[in-house]
Amino acid sequence: MIEYYDVSGCYILRPWSFFIWQQIHRWLDGKIQELGVQNAYFPCFVSQEALRAEEEHVEGFAPEVAWVTKSGTSELTKPIAIRPTSETIMYPSFAKWIRSHRDLPLQLNQWTNVVRWEFKQPTPFLRTREFLWQEGHTAHSTEEEAAHLVRSALDLYSCVYTDLLALPVIKGVKSLEEKFAGSVYTETLEAFIPATGRGIQAATSHYLGQNFAKMFGIRFEDDSGQKQLVHQTCWGFTTRCIGIMIMVHGDDRGLVLPPRVAPTQVVLIPIPGKEHAGIEARCRELASALKDRGIRAEVDARQTYTPGWKFNWWEMKGVPLRVEVGPKDMAQGTCRLARRFDGLKKDVDQAQLSSCIPAELDQIHEAMLEKATRHRDDGIATVTRWDEVMPMLNQRKLILAPWCESAESEAEIRSRTKEEAPKPGLSSDAAETATILTGAMKSLCIPLMQPLMPPGTKCFVTGEPAKRWALFGRSY
Amino acid sequence: MIEYYDVSGCYILRPWSFFIWQQIHRWLDGKIQELGVQNAYFPCFVSQEALRAEEEHVEGFAPEVAWVTKSGTSELTKPIAIRPTSETIMYPSFAKWIRSHRDLPLQLNQWTNVVRWEFKQPTPFLRTREFLWQEGHTAHSTEEEAAHLVRSALDLYSCVYTDLLALPVIKGVKSLEEKFAGSVYTETLEAFIPATGRGIQAATSHYLGQNFAKMFGIRFEDDSGQKQLVHQTCWGFTTRCIGIMIMVHGDDRGLVLPPRVAPTQVVLIPIPGKEHAGIEARCRELASALKDRGIRAEVDARQTYTPGWKFNWWEMKGVPLRVEVGPKDMAQGTCRLARRFDGLKKDVDQAQLSSCIPAELDQIHEAMLEKATRHRDDGIATVTRWDEVMPMLNQRKLILAPWCESAESEAEIRSRTKEEAPKPGLSSDAAETATILTGAMKSLCIPLMQPLMPPGTKCFVTGEPAKRWALFGRSY
Repeated sequence: MIEYYDVSGCYILRPWSFFIWQQIHRWLDGKIQELGVQNAYFPCFVSQEALRAEEEHVEGFAPEVAWVTKSGTSELTKPIAIRPTSETIMYPSFAKWIRSHRDLPLQLNQWTNVVRWEFKQPTPFLRTREFLWQEGHTAHSTEEEAAHLVRSALDLYSCVYTDLLALPVIKGVKSLEEKFAGSVYTETLEAFIPATGRGIQAATSHYLGQNFAKMFGIRFEDDSGQKQLVHQTCWGFTTRCIGIMIMVHGDDRGLVLPPRVAPTQVVLIPIPGKEHAGIEARCRELASALKDRGIRAEVDARQTYTPGWKFNWWEMKGVPLRVEVGPKDMAQGTCRLARRFDGLKKDVDQAQLSSCIPAELDQIHEAMLEKATRHRDDGIATVTRWDEVMPMLNQRKLILAPWCESAESEAEIRSRTKEEAPKPGLSSDAAETATILTGAMKSLCIPLMQPLMPPGTKCFVTGEPAKRWALFGRSY
Repeated sequence: MIEYYDVSGCYILRPWSFFIWQQIHRWLDGKIQELGVQNAYFPCFVSQEALRAEEEHVEGFAPEVAWVTKSGTSELTKPIAIRPTSETIMYPSFAKWIRSHRDLPLQLNQWTNVVRWEFKQPTPFLRTREFLWQEGHTAHSTEEEAAHLVRSALDLYSCVYTDLLALPVIKGVKSLEEKFAGSVYTETLEAFIPATGRGIQAATSHYLGQNFAKMFGIRFEDDSGQKQLVHQTCWGFTTRCIGIMIMVHGDDRGLVLPPRVAPTQVVLIPIPGKEHAGIEARCRELASALKDRGIRAEVDARQTYTPGWKFNWWEMKGVPLRVEVGPKDMAQGTCRLARRFDGLKKDVDQAQLSSCIPAELDQIHEAMLEKATRHRDDGIATVTRWDEVMPMLNQRKLILAPWCESAESEAEIRSRTKEEAPKPGLSSDAAETATILTGAMKSLCIPLMQPLMPPGTKCFVTGEPAKRWALFGRSY
């Protein structure tokens, strides 16, 4: 999937992982266009002045901004930043382009690399100093229209997870502490990693209100000739999703790829026998019939490896379906299917192979999503009192609890869970605990789907009246 | 097409121009995959050590490299360069990945931004400090196979120009002075801008030989167990092509877009009459029928502008075909077609519109290519003696001449044409001359298609025996 690189925090996306990003790109880009959003490309550089125009926003990024100060051997007169995100790059142009209500909505998107020079431990896909993403930026005449677009983008992102990556996500709103700096509110998708019991932010969509419009002077003349500030949104989807996919679906034998994004969906492996040449030719015929149906099929006819070695190799690479053709299969006109994700095997007539595979891949997708959803649901503990929190957290669960949503309680949650976390070397299974069950719990989101809350329900932290159910957890 | 930006040398690609790049991207990417090349993504950063590993190569880029030296407010321990091109980023991994002849060919491609901090006058699309491109990099076991790929990439690039952009290009080989630093030879496409009489490099494809393989230790074990150095190629296609398209096809009224890349291929303009509402509805029906055939059609039903204003607006934007529907047309069941590129008008039955438009767009494409080819052919003067050079150059022509190909003669050509160029204020039409007819002539390429050269032909500069015909000109 990746190769390490000699600049810390940067990784190479090899064809196997880049293909997955391309599949997502192609699908999501089409859906974004259907929203009436157009693609464009803005420079990767931003001047100091523009970057600093929106203070609250820049504060969130300032420590992570990479600065270009030299070209060749000469010093630049002013340092120039590399985009960590493009609000301050795009919005001065928005101010130029928008004059009248007829220029609205202005809806642009770009697919780019961005740079955030983080100093936390880098992790492939999850925390990298350069990553690839799509960022949408829109301006509207009304808050309602903008809010609708914020949600539409979130819904698309959710479909990428469920329909392409076979991953369940929880839609929600970020707390004020956790929202994007400069936004009025941030909608989010949160995923769950069963192996570590941690939540992970999967994508976000922001309503910016008129915050940036004020700073950059983005005004339009309404129907009645009045100057008004626009209402803005921005929303982004990154290569992080590939990391989430790997962590949720992967197993001890390696990757498990969901069929719709797998570079190779079906690998055909000839099992040599006396009729060896005939078997390989038959595999190629079968593969060709599959390709005609739009299935990404491949024959592994390498002479230098045994079938067993090849089984392991393709399992490690996560290919959803293996088709074996041996001498016995040839005699019977059948072949053997083996599913990567659950090991299920069955024999199928060769003549029926190409017609049954599309449904088989869909079934694998559904089964993977179902399994991941079950694990996710099992990973959420509903809690109403603080003393239930740490035991659940240490059983690698997320916490769904009634919350008052105050900033103080959010700080309180972090500090208490940090203090109460098991200390390495003191707990019963120290080694594992030390690596996994550390770190403070924080709010992940306030889910859009709220269980009924009985009247008089108290906040699980402060005992004050609870506003809504919120999801908490250790996170990435 | 573009918007200016507050970082010098950087421009914003607005949706109208970015769409053209997307069309090229989509077509070219498909063709690149058909060559067996896979897409990947390598980091945009390169360490000082890696960048300096291939000296001859880096020398060509060193003055233009942008260096990141700070993150937030902290100095980096070592400066890190932003990719001007990715040889030194990719090839250390090639050395890791290639072990045996079974790992070859290794053929990778990526679509990225690159940064070259030039200090010459920036020009949108043609000379920008950041630009978008595709870069292919391959490694092969034999020179023949590598050379074949160099040519295959060049052929694809040529097709982008002729089949998508309706532009003629000349395939050739660069002189040793003009080739890519670090390559053994560079194949090139050269285009011609009639308005200025200058040549412009349109795309290049390089045979790197074993130069980089030696520096980065990229070796494979051949059939007989011997370690061999790989033979490499690299080739790139950039957003510059959009600039060439604008300059060649554009006219006094603005852009003229070739149909296959135009974001809007057909604009339908209702001409209001007594039956106004019916006309607009009819335009929408016609547009919808066109869209069903895959034509990018749009109705301009804006009430605030007159038809005349709209005609100018869409002409300026370069839309290939305008369809007018007025009251008279409605009565007769016809509509009027107007071609942007040559102003040709004709009436067509509304019922036949959607079936005749695809052929009409193809005819426009062919006619644009034919016209540009005629102008290009007229713009090349075949010259055998030095005294013919300056007059032809000052008539805005390129020079095709028999050449000895020596490095000394190349230098001689530059210095002589610089000296002999008309001086601003001294020539007869000084103003124009000063802006256009300046700059030295250099070799553009040695065309792959060579006219027969009579035995004993002398070099037009040195009088030594000529090797081949070469194309020279002022250039961008």
